[in-house]
Amino acid sequence: MVYSSDLSFTTVIDLLGTFAFAVSGIRWASTKRFDWFGAYVIGLVTAIGGGTTRDLLLNVTPFWMQDATYLTVTGLALLVTLLFRNRLFLWGRTLFLFDSIGLGLFTVVGVVKSLDAGFPFWVCIMMGAITGSVGGVIRDVLLNEVPLLFRKDIYALACIAGGIVYMICYQSNLSASLTEFLAALTVILIRVVAVRYHVQLPFLKPIDTNHNGRENKE
Amino acid sequence: MVYSSDLSFTTVIDLLGTFAFAVSGIRWASTKRFDWFGAYVIGLVTAIGGGTTRDLLLNVTPFWMQDATYLTVTGLALLVTLLFRNRLFLWGRTLFLFDSIGLGLFTVVGVVKSLDAGFPFWVCIMMGAITGSVGGVIRDVLLNEVPLLFRKDIYALACIAGGIVYMICYQSNLSASLTEFLAALTVILIRVVAVRYHVQLPFLKPIDTNHNGRENKE
Amino acid sequence: MVYSSDLSFTTVIDLLGTFAFAVSGIRWASTKRFDWFGAYVIGLVTAIGGGTTRDLLLNVTPFWMQDATYLTVTGLALLVTLLFRNRLFLWGRTLFLFDSIGLGLFTVVGVVKSLDAGFPFWVCIMMGAITGSVGGVIRDVLLNEVPLLFRKDIYALACIAGGIVYMICYQSNLSASLTEFLAALTVILIRVVAVRYHVQLPFLKPIDTNHNGRENKE
Repeated sequence: MVYSSDLSFTTVIDLLGTFAFAVSGIRWASTKRFDWFGAYVIGLVTAIGGGTTRDLLLNVTPFWMQDATYLTVTGLALLVTLLFRNRLFLWGRTLFLFDSIGLGLFTVVGVVKSLDAGFPFWVCIMMGAITGSVGGVIRDVLLNEVPLLFRKDIYALACIAGGIVYMICYQSNLSASLTEFLAALTVILIRVVAVRYHVQLPFLKPIDTNHNGRENKE
Repeated sequence: MVYSSDLSFTTVIDLLGTFAFAVSGIRWASTKRFDWFGAYVIGLVTAIGGGTTRDLLLNVTPFWMQDATYLTVTGLALLVTLLFRNRLFLWGRTLFLFDSIGLGLFTVVGVVKSLDAGFPFWVCIMMGAITGSVGGVIRDVLLNEVPLLFRKDIYALACIAGGIVYMICYQSNLSASLTEFLAALTVILIRVVAVRYHVQLPFLKPIDTNHNGRENKE
Repeated sequence: MVYSSDLSFTTVIDLLGTFAFAVSGIRWASTKRFDWFGAYVIGLVTAIGGGTTRDLLLNVTPFWMQDATYLTVTGLALLVTLLFRNRLFLWGRTLFLFDSIGLGLFTVVGVVKSLDAGFPFWVCIMMGAITGSVGGVIRDVLLNEVPLLFRKDIYALACIAGGIVYMICYQSNLSASLTEFLAALTVILIRVVAVRYHVQLPFLKPIDTNHNGRENKE
């Protein structure tokens, strides 16, 4: 995300990640009888929602307002989804890989941008997780569903672990590119392992909310 | 919206548009057993939500924080709705006209503000659409419904068309007032025609999401 | 909230309020089968969502990005909720008291921050109400429920009343600490009385929305 426009490798990963995030949003929109425009908006919000939230909190201009690529890639994602609708499930693994790699990169971008803005390490870690996961939360809110994030946490926790690895490498004076690589790899590995082995955090059991508790809600 | 406080004509349209947006929000709130205060908040959010989102993205102070008129007009909308509850349906056409004219003006205001802030034309067009349509999206999210916008797209597409017309006239060096008039007219005409003839975009058919796809969601 | 770090009394109240807000969020999350991480996020959003919205509107750095205490207190709230799950209802009154006192303080902080930023009195009053009540609205949206705020208004109206009292005392040149005390006390008393005696605003009766009205929605 406008992170290093000269590094073509990073740019390619960024675009693949954006594409995978957008396809995920469009697929879920298709379950809700949305029209093409609605599906495009959901895809876009899934892809750029996390980075936009981060940029608003950091008080900088949202990254997609400086580079039209993200709108174009989302349009491409809609086109591909419309054309290959019936064969999309064959690409499940490939899209999942793009999605995980994108998540790793988005996390690193979030951490780096916050470090550059001079924030302490725990803010940077949070911004990495926000960059990676808030897009999916906004998508779920717009689809009128309880965000999956809150029930299948390893997504955001993978970002947090990646952020912690970043800060450790950073403090150890590793080179920037090695630091970024190790942090992104951490996110990707945790994500892949968690999905493959269905790793989950324990659920919170319902807490008795009596009358007093109810009045407490607001 | 603080757009040209000296042009009384624009101001009047702005207030009528705000009024129509607020009434629309209050009406929908009434279907959900909200109290008066809740209805007021929904009316306000419908009227100012789009412009507030735009101003946050443009990193300027939200327009309604500089002019109490929007709060007053929303209060008036609540009063009128409470008083004429049973006769409100008779005004359907008038309110729809206000709403469409307001939409045209809101779109133009969004485009002009973004141009003034120095953004490229495609950002300005998006900001016009955001100004016109995000208020309704926030209203629907707060009412716990899937936003209508994603199923009846001509609303936001009308804003986009108006933004494109604006940019074409602007590039052609037409006068500012003619440019604004033609852009707003485009929005209004497309909106009126789409509603009258039930024009819709095609829907996106459900996409098979197998197990792999599911895991992909987050 | 970074309001006066030297006044230990205010700091203690701020932390108790944050704690009570977070517990309220975590409790409601427990009714939705969230995992621990999801519950933490809901608790955090309930506690800091209002102040974050205020800071974004005022265009300043969100308060919790300058002080890790809010994250820690929310973690403590999760821990306590997990440990004392079955006895939490016994603390109903205490938590309600913390919650009400926190609401009073949050309102005052919102008003003071907006005054310091140079906004007119009606913006300051709104920011006080936003600080106190938007966290709960975001919590309800994420839990996929219609926000309670819109049906049990006395919550936000108590903040507005407190804001008005603040402005009256401020105009009367009362000392800062007395002004803040009276404003917070107003919020707390109205809140406690409203809950105890089930005071409510009238509900808005459903408004007939015929076909024209429907088309009007968007």
